[in-house]
Amino acid sequence: MNIHPQWISGFVDGEGTFYVGINQNETMKHGFQVLPEFRIVQHKRDVALLHAIKKYFKAGVVRVNHGDRYELRIRKFEALKDIIIPFFEQHSLRTQKRIDFIKFRKVIQCMDNKEHLSKDGLAKIFSIIEDMNTANKEITRNMLLDKDIVRSSLRNEE
Amino acid sequence: MNIHPQWISGFVDGEGTFYVGINQNETMKHGFQVLPEFRIVQHKRDVALLHAIKKYFKAGVVRVNHGDRYELRIRKFEALKDIIIPFFEQHSLRTQKRIDFIKFRKVIQCMDNKEHLSKDGLAKIFSIIEDMNTANKEITRNMLLDKDIVRSSLRNEE
Repeated sequence: MNIHPQWISGFVDGEGTFYVGINQNETMKHGFQVLPEFRIVQHKRDVALLHAIKKYFKAGVVRVNHGDRYELRIRKFEALKDIIIPFFEQHSLRTQKRIDFIKFRKVIQCMDNKEHLSKDGLAKIFSIIEDMNTANKEITRNMLLDKDIVRSSLRNEE
Repeated sequence: MNIHPQWISGFVDGEGTFYVGINQNETMKHGFQVLPEFRIVQHKRDVALLHAIKKYFKAGVVRVNHGDRYELRIRKFEALKDIIIPFFEQHSLRTQKRIDFIKFRKVIQCMDNKEHLSKDGLAKIFSIIEDMNTANKEITRNMLLDKDIVRSSLRNEE
Protein backbone atom coordinates (compact mmCIF):
# COMPACT_ATOMS: atom_id res chain seq x y z
CA MET A 1 0.00 0.00 0.00
CA ASN A 2 1.71 3.21 -1.17
CA ILE A 3 0.71 6.19 0.93
CA HIS A 4 1.18 9.81 -0.08
CA PRO A 5 2.70 11.92 2.75
CA GLN A 6 0.02 14.58 2.25
CA TRP A 7 -2.64 11.89 2.74
CA ILE A 8 -0.97 11.00 6.06
CA SER A 9 -0.97 14.66 7.09
CA GLY A 10 -4.70 14.99 6.35
CA PHE A 11 -5.49 11.71 8.08
CA VAL A 12 -3.52 12.72 11.18
CA ASP A 13 -5.33 16.08 11.21
CA GLY A 14 -8.47 14.03 11.66
CA GLU A 15 -7.32 11.00 13.60
CA GLY A 16 -3.89 11.59 15.11
CA THR A 17 -2.91 12.63 18.63
CA PHE A 18 0.21 14.38 19.88
CA TYR A 19 0.22 13.58 23.55
CA VAL A 20 2.59 14.32 26.40
CA GLY A 21 2.01 12.13 29.42
CA ILE A 22 3.43 12.85 32.84
CA ASN A 23 3.97 9.77 34.96
CA GLN A 24 4.91 9.65 38.59
CA ASN A 25 8.11 7.68 38.75
CA GLU A 26 9.99 7.36 42.00
CA THR A 27 13.19 6.40 40.24
CA MET A 28 13.40 9.83 38.54
CA LYS A 29 15.23 12.67 40.30
CA HIS A 30 12.13 14.87 40.65
CA GLY A 31 9.65 11.98 40.75
CA PHE A 32 8.18 12.51 37.30
CA GLN A 33 8.74 11.10 33.88
CA VAL A 34 7.78 13.01 30.70
CA LEU A 35 6.38 10.65 28.05
CA PRO A 36 5.69 12.21 24.66
CA GLU A 37 3.75 9.95 22.34
CA PHE A 38 2.29 10.12 18.84
CA ARG A 39 -0.63 7.85 18.08
CA ILE A 40 -3.39 7.07 15.64
CA VAL A 41 -6.37 5.03 16.82
CA GLN A 42 -8.61 3.15 14.38
CA HIS A 43 -11.27 0.47 14.41
CA LYS A 44 -9.72 -2.98 13.92
CA ARG A 45 -11.17 -3.09 10.37
CA ASP A 46 -8.40 -0.59 9.45
CA VAL A 47 -5.53 -2.24 11.30
CA ALA A 48 -3.76 -2.89 7.95
CA LEU A 49 -3.67 0.86 7.38
CA LEU A 50 -2.01 1.39 10.78
CA HIS A 51 0.64 -1.16 9.76
CA ALA A 52 1.12 0.69 6.45
CA ILE A 53 1.67 3.99 8.28
CA LYS A 54 4.05 2.26 10.70
CA LYS A 55 5.97 0.96 7.68
CA TYR A 56 6.01 4.46 6.15
CA PHE A 57 7.50 5.97 9.31
CA LYS A 58 9.65 2.89 10.02
CA ALA A 59 8.69 3.38 13.67
CA GLY A 60 6.14 2.49 16.30
CA VAL A 61 4.06 -0.47 17.37
CA VAL A 62 0.52 -1.45 16.40
CA ARG A 63 -1.41 -2.76 19.40
CA VAL A 64 -4.89 -3.02 20.90
CA ASN A 65 -6.07 0.37 22.16
CA HIS A 66 -9.41 -0.54 23.72
CA GLY A 67 -12.02 -3.12 22.74
CA ASP A 68 -12.18 -3.36 18.96
CA ARG A 69 -9.88 -0.36 18.46
CA TYR A 70 -6.20 -0.54 17.55
CA GLU A 71 -3.49 2.09 17.74
CA LEU A 72 -0.23 2.88 16.06
CA ARG A 73 1.88 4.29 18.88
CA ILE A 74 5.30 5.90 18.53
CA ARG A 75 7.12 6.59 21.80
CA LYS A 76 10.76 6.11 20.91
CA PHE A 77 12.36 9.50 21.48
CA GLU A 78 14.69 9.34 18.45
CA ALA A 79 11.78 8.40 16.17
CA LEU A 80 9.69 11.33 17.44
CA LYS A 81 12.61 13.75 17.11
CA ASP A 82 14.10 12.57 13.81
CA ILE A 83 11.05 11.23 11.93
CA ILE A 84 7.72 12.55 13.26
CA ILE A 85 8.71 16.18 13.95
CA PRO A 86 10.43 16.68 10.56
CA PHE A 87 7.55 14.94 8.76
CA PHE A 88 4.92 17.36 10.11
CA GLU A 89 7.24 20.31 9.59
CA GLN A 90 7.37 19.34 5.93
CA HIS A 91 3.69 18.33 5.57
CA SER A 92 1.83 20.88 7.64
CA LEU A 93 -1.27 20.06 9.62
CA ARG A 94 -4.20 22.30 8.69
CA THR A 95 -6.52 22.04 11.68
CA GLN A 96 -5.92 23.52 15.10
CA LYS A 97 -4.17 20.23 15.90
CA ARG A 98 -1.16 22.05 14.46
CA ILE A 99 -1.02 23.93 17.78
CA ASP A 100 -0.75 20.62 19.66
CA PHE A 101 2.02 19.63 17.26
CA ILE A 102 3.94 22.87 17.92
CA LYS A 103 3.70 22.34 21.69
CA PHE A 104 4.67 18.69 21.26
CA ARG A 105 7.74 19.79 19.28
CA LYS A 106 8.66 22.25 22.04
CA VAL A 107 8.55 19.45 24.61
CA ILE A 108 10.73 17.22 22.39
CA GLN A 109 13.21 20.10 22.04
CA CYS A 110 13.24 20.62 25.84
CA MET A 111 13.89 16.92 26.35
CA ASP A 112 16.59 16.92 23.68
CA ASN A 113 18.27 19.67 25.76
CA LYS A 114 17.83 17.49 28.89
CA GLU A 115 15.67 20.25 30.44
CA HIS A 116 13.17 17.65 31.72
CA LEU A 117 15.81 16.49 34.21
CA SER A 118 15.70 19.76 36.17
CA LYS A 119 12.84 21.14 38.26
CA ASP A 120 12.72 24.36 36.22
CA GLY A 121 12.67 22.36 33.00
CA LEU A 122 9.81 20.21 34.29
CA ALA A 123 7.85 23.35 35.22
CA LYS A 124 8.49 24.72 31.70
CA ILE A 125 7.20 21.50 30.15
CA PHE A 126 4.06 21.56 32.34
CA SER A 127 3.33 25.11 31.23
CA ILE A 128 3.80 24.13 27.54
CA ILE A 129 1.37 21.23 27.72
CA GLU A 130 -1.19 22.95 29.97
CA ASP A 131 -3.92 23.16 27.33
CA MET A 132 -2.82 20.51 24.85
CA ASN A 133 -5.14 17.81 23.59
CA THR A 134 -8.26 19.82 24.29
CA ALA A 135 -9.98 17.59 21.72
CA ASN A 136 -9.52 14.63 24.02
CA LYS A 137 -11.25 15.44 27.27
CA GLU A 138 -10.43 12.18 29.00
CA ILE A 139 -6.72 12.46 28.33
CA THR A 140 -6.75 16.12 29.33
CA ARG A 141 -8.47 15.30 32.59
CA ASN A 142 -5.92 12.60 33.39
CA MET A 143 -3.13 14.96 32.47
CA LEU A 144 -4.54 17.73 34.66
CA LEU A 145 -4.82 15.32 37.55
CA ASP A 146 -1.20 14.41 36.97
CA LYS A 147 -0.26 18.07 36.85
CA ASP A 148 -2.00 18.84 40.13
CA ILE A 149 0.03 16.09 41.71
CA VAL A 150 3.14 17.47 40.02
CA ARG A 151 2.49 21.03 41.17
CA SER A 152 1.72 20.17 44.76
CA SER A 153 4.74 17.91 44.75
CA LEU A 154 6.98 20.66 43.37
CA ARG A 155 5.50 23.07 45.93
CA ASN A 156 6.25 20.64 48.72
CA GLU A 157 9.87 20.49 47.63
CA GLU A 158 10.25 24.27 47.97
CA MET B 1 -4.83 28.44 2.17
CA ASN B 2 -3.50 26.05 -0.49
CA ILE B 3 -4.65 22.51 0.13
CA HIS B 4 -3.10 19.43 -1.44
CA PRO B 5 -5.74 17.02 -2.80
CA GLN B 6 -4.06 14.09 -1.05
CA TRP B 7 -4.37 15.99 2.25
CA ILE B 8 -8.11 16.34 1.58
CA SER B 9 -8.37 12.61 0.86
CA GLY B 10 -6.65 11.74 4.15
CA PHE B 11 -8.72 14.26 6.08
CA VAL B 12 -11.96 12.91 4.61
CA ASP B 13 -10.86 9.36 5.46
CA GLY B 14 -10.88 10.56 9.06
CA GLU B 15 -13.60 13.18 9.13
CA GLY B 16 -15.81 12.93 6.04
CA THR B 17 -19.18 11.23 5.59
CA PHE B 18 -20.81 9.89 2.45
CA TYR B 19 -24.45 9.73 3.42
CA VAL B 20 -27.61 8.80 1.57
CA GLY B 21 -30.75 10.02 3.28
CA ILE B 22 -34.22 8.76 2.46
CA ASN B 23 -36.98 11.26 3.16
CA GLN B 24 -40.67 10.64 3.08
CA ASN B 25 -42.02 13.12 0.58
CA GLU B 26 -45.67 12.97 -0.46
CA THR B 27 -44.99 14.97 -3.60
CA MET B 28 -42.78 12.18 -5.03
CA LYS B 29 -44.37 9.41 -7.10
CA HIS B 30 -43.48 6.62 -4.66
CA GLY B 31 -43.50 8.83 -1.58
CA PHE B 32 -39.74 8.92 -1.03
CA GLN B 33 -36.90 11.22 -1.91
CA VAL B 34 -33.28 10.00 -2.11
CA LEU B 35 -30.87 12.61 -0.75
CA PRO B 36 -27.18 11.86 -1.19
CA GLU B 37 -24.93 14.18 0.74
CA PHE B 38 -21.21 14.60 1.35
CA ARG B 39 -20.18 16.34 4.53
CA ILE B 40 -17.31 17.16 6.83
CA VAL B 41 -18.05 18.21 10.40
CA GLN B 42 -15.54 20.18 12.49
CA HIS B 43 -15.42 22.18 15.68
CA LYS B 44 -16.02 25.87 14.99
CA ARG B 45 -12.32 26.59 15.64
CA ASP B 46 -11.67 25.00 12.22
CA VAL B 47 -14.49 26.67 10.30
CA ALA B 48 -11.90 28.49 8.11
CA LEU B 49 -10.66 25.09 6.96
CA LEU B 50 -14.19 24.06 5.95
CA HIS B 51 -14.42 27.25 3.88
CA ALA B 52 -11.06 26.44 2.28
CA ILE B 53 -12.27 22.95 1.31
CA LYS B 54 -15.52 24.44 -0.02
CA LYS B 55 -13.42 26.81 -2.12
CA TYR B 56 -11.29 23.91 -3.36
CA PHE B 57 -14.37 21.96 -4.49
CA LYS B 58 -16.19 25.12 -5.62
CA ALA B 59 -19.30 23.56 -4.07
CA GLY B 60 -21.32 23.24 -0.88
CA VAL B 61 -22.35 25.35 2.06
CA VAL B 62 -20.72 25.84 5.45
CA ARG B 63 -23.32 25.94 8.23
CA VAL B 64 -23.87 25.11 11.88
CA ASN B 65 -24.09 21.35 12.38
CA HIS B 66 -24.90 21.14 16.09
CA GLY B 67 -23.81 23.30 19.02
CA ASP B 68 -20.24 24.48 18.42
CA ARG B 69 -19.77 22.21 15.42
CA TYR B 70 -19.88 23.35 11.80
CA GLU B 71 -20.25 21.33 8.61
CA LEU B 72 -19.35 21.66 4.98
CA ARG B 73 -22.30 20.03 3.22
CA ILE B 74 -22.52 19.26 -0.48
CA ARG B 75 -25.95 18.15 -1.70
CA LYS B 76 -26.16 19.55 -5.22
CA PHE B 77 -26.43 16.52 -7.48
CA GLU B 78 -24.21 17.88 -10.25
CA ALA B 79 -21.48 18.77 -7.74
CA LEU B 80 -21.58 15.27 -6.24
CA LYS B 81 -21.53 13.63 -9.68
CA ASP B 82 -19.03 15.88 -11.45
CA ILE B 83 -16.72 17.02 -8.63
CA ILE B 84 -16.86 14.77 -5.55
CA ILE B 85 -17.06 11.35 -7.25
CA PRO B 86 -14.20 12.06 -9.72
CA PHE B 87 -12.09 13.60 -6.92
CA PHE B 88 -12.21 10.45 -4.76
CA GLU B 89 -11.73 8.23 -7.82
CA GLN B 90 -8.50 10.10 -8.44
CA HIS B 91 -7.41 10.44 -4.78
CA SER B 92 -8.39 7.12 -3.23
CA LEU B 93 -9.60 6.79 0.31
CA ARG B 94 -7.53 4.33 2.33
CA THR B 95 -9.82 3.36 5.20
CA GLN B 96 -12.92 1.20 4.96
CA LYS B 97 -14.78 4.47 4.31
CA ARG B 98 -13.84 3.71 0.70
CA ILE B 99 -16.65 1.12 0.78
CA ASP B 100 -19.15 3.85 1.74
CA PHE B 101 -17.79 5.93 -1.13
CA ILE B 102 -18.28 3.07 -3.63
CA LYS B 103 -21.88 2.60 -2.48
CA PHE B 104 -22.44 6.35 -2.58
CA ARG B 105 -21.14 6.41 -6.15
CA LYS B 106 -23.51 3.57 -7.08
CA VAL B 107 -26.46 5.56 -5.73
CA ILE B 108 -25.35 8.64 -7.69
CA GLN B 109 -25.11 6.50 -10.83
CA CYS B 110 -28.61 5.07 -10.22
CA MET B 111 -29.97 8.57 -9.80
CA ASP B 112 -28.16 9.78 -12.89
CA ASN B 113 -30.01 6.99 -14.75
CA LYS B 114 -33.29 8.16 -13.12
CA GLU B 115 -33.67 4.76 -11.46
CA HIS B 116 -34.74 6.39 -8.18
CA LEU B 117 -38.00 7.39 -9.86
CA SER B 118 -39.19 3.78 -10.19
CA LYS B 119 -40.17 1.40 -7.39
CA ASP B 120 -37.58 -1.17 -8.52
CA GLY B 121 -34.92 1.52 -8.63
CA LEU B 122 -35.80 2.68 -5.12
CA ALA B 123 -35.57 -0.92 -3.86
CA LYS B 124 -32.15 -1.21 -5.53
CA ILE B 125 -30.96 1.97 -3.82
CA PHE B 126 -32.20 0.77 -0.43
CA SER B 127 -30.27 -2.47 -0.85
CA ILE B 128 -27.10 -0.55 -1.81
CA ILE B 129 -27.21 1.69 1.25
CA GLU B 130 -28.36 -1.01 3.68
CA ASP B 131 -25.11 -1.11 5.67
CA MET B 132 -23.54 2.23 4.78
CA ASN B 133 -22.29 4.64 7.41
CA THR B 134 -21.75 1.90 9.96
CA ALA B 135 -19.37 4.28 11.70
CA ASN B 136 -22.28 6.59 12.45
CA LYS B 137 -24.75 4.57 14.48
CA GLU B 138 -27.27 7.36 14.93
CA ILE B 139 -27.52 8.08 11.23
CA THR B 140 -27.68 4.36 10.44
CA ARG B 141 -30.50 3.90 12.93
CA ASN B 142 -32.47 6.79 11.43
CA MET B 143 -31.84 5.42 7.98
CA LEU B 144 -32.97 1.94 9.01
CA LEU B 145 -36.11 3.43 10.50
CA ASP B 146 -36.67 5.23 7.22
CA LYS B 147 -36.12 2.00 5.33
CA ASP B 148 -38.61 0.07 7.43
CA ILE B 149 -41.17 2.71 6.59
CA VAL B 150 -40.12 2.51 2.96
CA ARG B 151 -40.34 -1.25 2.86
CA SER B 152 -43.73 -1.52 4.52
CA SER B 153 -44.93 1.28 2.27
CA LEU B 154 -43.66 -0.51 -0.82
CA ARG B 155 -45.26 -3.73 0.43
CA ASN B 156 -48.57 -1.98 0.95
CA GLU B 157 -48.50 -0.77 -2.62
CA GLU B 158 -48.26 -4.34 -3.95
